[in-house]
Order: sequence, then C-alpha cells, then structure tokens
Amino acid sequence: MTESNLRDRAIRLHRENNGKIEMVSKVDILTESDLSLVYTPGVGDVCKEIEKNPQELNSLTSRGNSVAVVTDGTAVLGLGDIGPGAAMPVMEGKSMLFKKFAGINAIPICLDTKEVEEIIAIVKALQPTFAGINLEDISAPRCFEIEKRLKEELDIPVFHDDQHGTAIVVLAGLLNSLKVVKKHMNNVKVVINGAGAAGISVAKLLLEAGFRDLTLVSLEGVVCEGESWLNPSQKEMADVTNKRHVKGSLRDVIAGADVFIGVSGPAALKAEEVEMMAENPIIFAMANPIPEIYPEEALRAGATVIGTGRSDYPNQINNLLAFPGIFRGAIDSGAADITIEMKIAAAYAIAKVIPERELAADYVIPHALNQEVAKVVARAVEDEALKTNKKVMQTS
Amino acid sequence: MTESNLRDRAIRLHRENNGKIEMVSKVDILTESDLSLVYTPGVGDVCKEIEKNPQELNSLTSRGNSVAVVTDGTAVLGLGDIGPGAAMPVMEGKSMLFKKFAGINAIPICLDTKEVEEIIAIVKALQPTFAGINLEDISAPRCFEIEKRLKEELDIPVFHDDQHGTAIVVLAGLLNSLKVVKKHMNNVKVVINGAGAAGISVAKLLLEAGFRDLTLVSLEGVVCEGESWLNPSQKEMADVTNKRHVKGSLRDVIAGADVFIGVSGPAALKAEEVEMMAENPIIFAMANPIPEIYPEEALRAGATVIGTGRSDYPNQINNLLAFPGIFRGAIDSGAADITIEMKIAAAYAIAKVIPERELAADYVIPHALNQEVAKVVARAVEDEALKTNKKVMQTS
Repeated sequence: MTESNLRDRAIRLHRENNGKIEMVSKVDILTESDLSLVYTPGVGDVCKEIEKNPQELNSLTSRGNSVAVVTDGTAVLGLGDIGPGAAMPVMEGKSMLFKKFAGINAIPICLDTKEVEEIIAIVKALQPTFAGINLEDISAPRCFEIEKRLKEELDIPVFHDDQHGTAIVVLAGLLNSLKVVKKHMNNVKVVINGAGAAGISVAKLLLEAGFRDLTLVSLEGVVCEGESWLNPSQKEMADVTNKRHVKGSLRDVIAGADVFIGVSGPAALKAEEVEMMAENPIIFAMANPIPEIYPEEALRAGATVIGTGRSDYPNQINNLLAFPGIFRGAIDSGAADITIEMKIAAAYAIAKVIPERELAADYVIPHALNQEVAKVVARAVEDEALKTNKKVMQTS
Repeated sequence: MTESNLRDRAIRLHRENNGKIEMVSKVDILTESDLSLVYTPGVGDVCKEIEKNPQELNSLTSRGNSVAVVTDGTAVLGLGDIGPGAAMPVMEGKSMLFKKFAGINAIPICLDTKEVEEIIAIVKALQPTFAGINLEDISAPRCFEIEKRLKEELDIPVFHDDQHGTAIVVLAGLLNSLKVVKKHMNNVKVVINGAGAAGISVAKLLLEAGFRDLTLVSLEGVVCEGESWLNPSQKEMADVTNKRHVKGSLRDVIAGADVFIGVSGPAALKAEEVEMMAENPIIFAMANPIPEIYPEEALRAGATVIGTGRSDYPNQINNLLAFPGIFRGAIDSGAADITIEMKIAAAYAIAKVIPERELAADYVIPHALNQEVAKVVARAVEDEALKTNKKVMQTS
C-alpha cells in the first residue's frame, strides 16, 4: 500500500463507519416485562443490592469489565500535542483492540485539559465507572506524575501503556533474543537511545528483570550523574545506570554494546555504529514509521537480531502484545494495582508463546495478531497478582 | 409479577449478563492490513485530518453519535442518595434505551464527587469525547446550577432528563387530555404537587407553552410570594405562578382545579380532593411505584383522564417518550443547545403520534415502547433547531 493510498483508505473507513466503536445492549427490550427488568421498576432493586453490597458493583453492571482509555492528546503517536479531539481515532483503535484480544469494554475518555491536578481529579472521580485506567499518549514528564499519583490514590489498576506496554514487549523480545545469541542478561551491555517516558520505563523494567549494565542516551547526550540538563526522571535513572559514568553522545557508549534499544527517532543509529557493537548485536529500532536504522542496513552492518515497530519486517515490537492481556489478568484477579512483578510475568509469558525450537533471529516476538498471546499473558498476570495478594494477606 | 419475583428476576438478569451494555467494534481486525487502517500507522492520518479540520471529529469518530449519561448518584429513582456506583444499573438502562430508540451510543459516567464546581469542570473536560450530555439523577437544587452553567459553558446540548424529560411528556399528555375534555390551556387551572426539580421544570415548560394559571405545592405548603421557606428556584416560581397569592396546603388550592400534576409521593391526593376539582378533572399522578392516587380511586371520585408513571395502567407518563428523540434531533441538527422551543416541539410531536380519532380518556399518551415516537420527536426537534439557527444567522 502506498502512503497516500493508506491515508485515503484509512480516512474512508473512518468516515463511512462514523468511527469504529459503538455502545450496544447485551439484552433486547421487546416487552413491558423486559423494560421492567432492565429499567424501572426492577432496576431499583439492583441499585439497592449494590448500595447494600458495594462489592456487587462489578458483578451486576458492566463496570467489572470496563476500562477507561484516558488521554489529553498531548503526545499522540509520533504526532505530538494534537489535542484531545484529534486523539480520538487512536483511542477508538485501542478500544477495538481491547475488545478483540481481551473481551474488555474500553471507553475513550479524551480530556480537554492539560492540568496534571485536574486530570488526576477527573480520573479519581471516574472510579465508580471503570475497573481499570489505561493512560494513553500523555506527554512526559506529566505522565509520570499522573500515573504515580493515580496508582497511589485509586484502588483499581492504572497503567500508562506508552511506558509499560513498550517496556514489557521489549523485555519479552530481549529474553528470546538473548537465547538466540546465547548471551545472558547478567552480563550484556544495553544502550537505550531515547530517555523520555518509554526509554526510562524500558530501563526500569530491564533493571527489575535482572539486567545490570544499562546506559540511556537522550537528545542532549548520555544520561550521566552531574549533567546539568537532566530532568528529575533522568536524574533518578543516572543513579542506577551508566555505571562507568561515560558522558558524551551515543557514539561514546555504543562500542561493545550487546543490545541497542531505540525509542528515539528516524535514522538515529548509523551503520558504522552497529559495526562498533559487540559480536551478534541485538537491535530494536522502534521509531515509527522510520526506524533508527532499517533492518536491511543493520543486517549488512553485522546485526544478528533486529526488531522494529513496523508490521512489514520480522519481530514487530507492538504494545498490542501486552496491554489486553495485562488488563484482562489484572481485572480478573481483582488486583488493586499492576505491579512490577505482574509486568515481568507478562513479558515472560509473551516470550514463551514461541516454542524454543522455533526461536530464530527473525522470530523472537510473537505476531501482533496472535490471539493466543493475550490469553497466556492474562493467565500469567492473574497468577502473579494472586501470589502477591496471598503474600500481602499472610504478612498483614 | 410479584414484587419479590421482580426483584429476583432483575438481579438474576443483571448478574448473568454482568451488566447490560458493552462497547463493541464496528469493523473487525483480521489482517495486518485491517490493523494498519484502524490503528497504526493509518490512524495517524485520521488524527491529522481532525487536527487540521476540527469539524471532522464527529464524522471520523463515534463522538458525533455519543452522549454521556452523567450522574453523581444523589437522587436515583425514588431511592435518594445511594451513591455513584449503585446508580450504575439505572445509567446502563438509560444507555440501552438511547440505543434501542434512537441508535445513540450512551456512555454511563458515574462520578465520585458531589461538588458542583468539580462536576461542572469534569463535564466540561469531557466535551471532546461526547456530542451531548444527559444529566441524570442529580439532586436539587444542585442539578439546576450544574445544568445552567453547563448550558452556558459548553457548545454541545446539555439536558437534565429528570427535569425536562418529565416536563415534556407531561405537556404532551396535557395537550391531548385537554382535547379529550374539550378545555383550553388558556383558561385551565393547574395544580402541580411537588416543587422540586421535576415540578419546577413542568411549571416552567407549561408557562412557556401557553398555560397561564399554575400553582405549585411543596411539602412545606403552597409556593407563594413571601413564604420564608422558599428556596431560590421556588422563589423564582412564586413570581410567575399562584397569581391569587393563596397560602396554605394542597387542600387550599385544589378546589376548582382542572388539572392535578403529581410529582410528589404516595397517596398525596385524597379522593375528597378530587371531588373538589372542576368538572372533568385531569390527574397525572406520577409518584412511583405508589402514585399520589390510584386510578381506580380517582375514577370513582370523578376524574376523567388519569395518567401515572406505571406501565400497568393506561396513560403511562414515561420520560422514555422524550429523551431518545430529543437527543437524536439535537445531535443531527448540530444544535449547540436544547432550547425551550425544541422541548415544546418535542411535546407536540409526542402528542400527535395518537391520531385525533383514537384519542380517548385512557389513551392520551403513546405507549412507552412505541418506536415511532422517537423518530417523530427527532424530526420535530431537528426542524425546530434548524429554524432557530436560521433566525440566529439572519439576525447576526
């Protein structure tokens, strides 16, 4: 499909359908008797039952299977701050994927405010309506504060997909890639190019999962203790990454690296930089639609495993592999939070979808449309949540 | 159906279905190509199109056919302040009716706050997500301030159904009842028992429609200038109703009344009070489930036309006859507001669904499940909106 052809077809599909999602009834209303059960007077008894037993809310209404997809439209795809209205097509797409892969009702909530405190207050007020909150396309560093506060102040799972979805799928891909190249997370050198929301979240998850040698590189340079331009999140990362305290640019840290993870921009990685990396380099070049380096070029420069954000190359790193199963599992377990352990469990579950005998340099990540993935992720996340809950119950 | 039987069946229906509504996709995702149109990368072009032409938002997304059903759970049915979670079954029922009768996506938004300013701020922030706002089951007098402010500050229709839905259907019923008893709105004496949100809204709409002689009665007594207990809304009504300045109770104003409208409580109207009314009295006793007077008793006392809120008697005054068509028409016309003229047009449209030759004392209101009603209401409201818009355009 050419680019203008894709654009025309996408716009036509959206226009002909007037959007992509709709709210429908699970039961029909044909008679007075139907009406008296789903609406007045019978519905009053259902309300009273929930008033008496609040834990019945999720059983007697669709709330127990409903997630809000919340955005302020400030960081939509690679388009930036296009506003909450223009963000709606992405939120509807997300809603479709939630339904298709996890059977979840996902409701777009596009907010006409960029105020951190107002967004937090609104989402808190929505707690009676939703069993989970998927934060989407909210710009850094505001997204960190919003997610942190909501995780503390709400009793339902809150998940900023741009941070954690990417991180989980990257971890899954790395687990399999390391098997292919026969290296171990304990002693590989990882360079993450991009120190925004996604890059920092990838770094945090890899550290929690057992990776030890990470270096982040931002547009300003290598994230290193003492650099004047570090923002608070980068400062925090400077304390736990880049242990050799290298300052400078990507060029200064890429030599000898085993893994390059790009969450940056087009053509940020040069062929000669790939040539400087350790043997059998793993490259996840996830900038979209133009990756940090095209797979053909990376292969010529000696890369072994290459992943991108694109569906027309092997090893597509797609959040879609994570968020539906994560929410399915979190909601089903009744977890009040999506913990780091649940995220790591999700990554291992995604990785294991590919049987060891099928693992190969061009097959380290399951296909984005593989419907099995959300199921195994959900099970792994639920199991982990129940394990954690049990621990909490035993120690309290 | 016995009462406990109804309760059991209602709770079972809600539990077995885990609520009554769900968000679904209008198109399926089967291939990479589908995914590239509804999600990345194709969706980015749709976002850019809306960013460039904001008026495309309603064509390219489901927003143009989506309404929020907003409540804080403070005045749910006759149950009072049961909270936003316990209110959810009513909001889901409403959502079903919006879909069934007007094809509209209605999304429950149950808010965990009772602060007027916070509710206003939240609904304002939701404007990019919805083409209309249905306020539901919010207690008086807060509902007045919330609706007034939102009507001023939003560019989309805002409608508090408990006030205006009831008023519109009452007006429709009265238009037909007056034909049956051969009286005219110019010179009938109307007593409205109940001076909360619904009673005041009925009074306002009847005045706008051409009724002249109205008296409101609250639990404290007849709404009359100078009474110390009047709240601000009642004070406003005291200036334009009860022109004979009668103080006292219902008993003091019912003599000679042509119409009794009850939006109060069970058994508020006695048989001997009906006997005191003018010839051929019209009685709308809408308290639910126990009306101000039962139809059998009112008939014995001499009433001619009797309506209730119940489906097991003739002439059910049900908001369902108004809100789906009102929103359909308002949204389709692109109106920024639901004006009093649009409400009156809706009432006339509902009344006209019954052909003159079929009008009878026990048939002044169309059946609640008559699917024709929403269609003619939508057309009448849209026509009225376009007429008003045209006037606005001609004078500006």
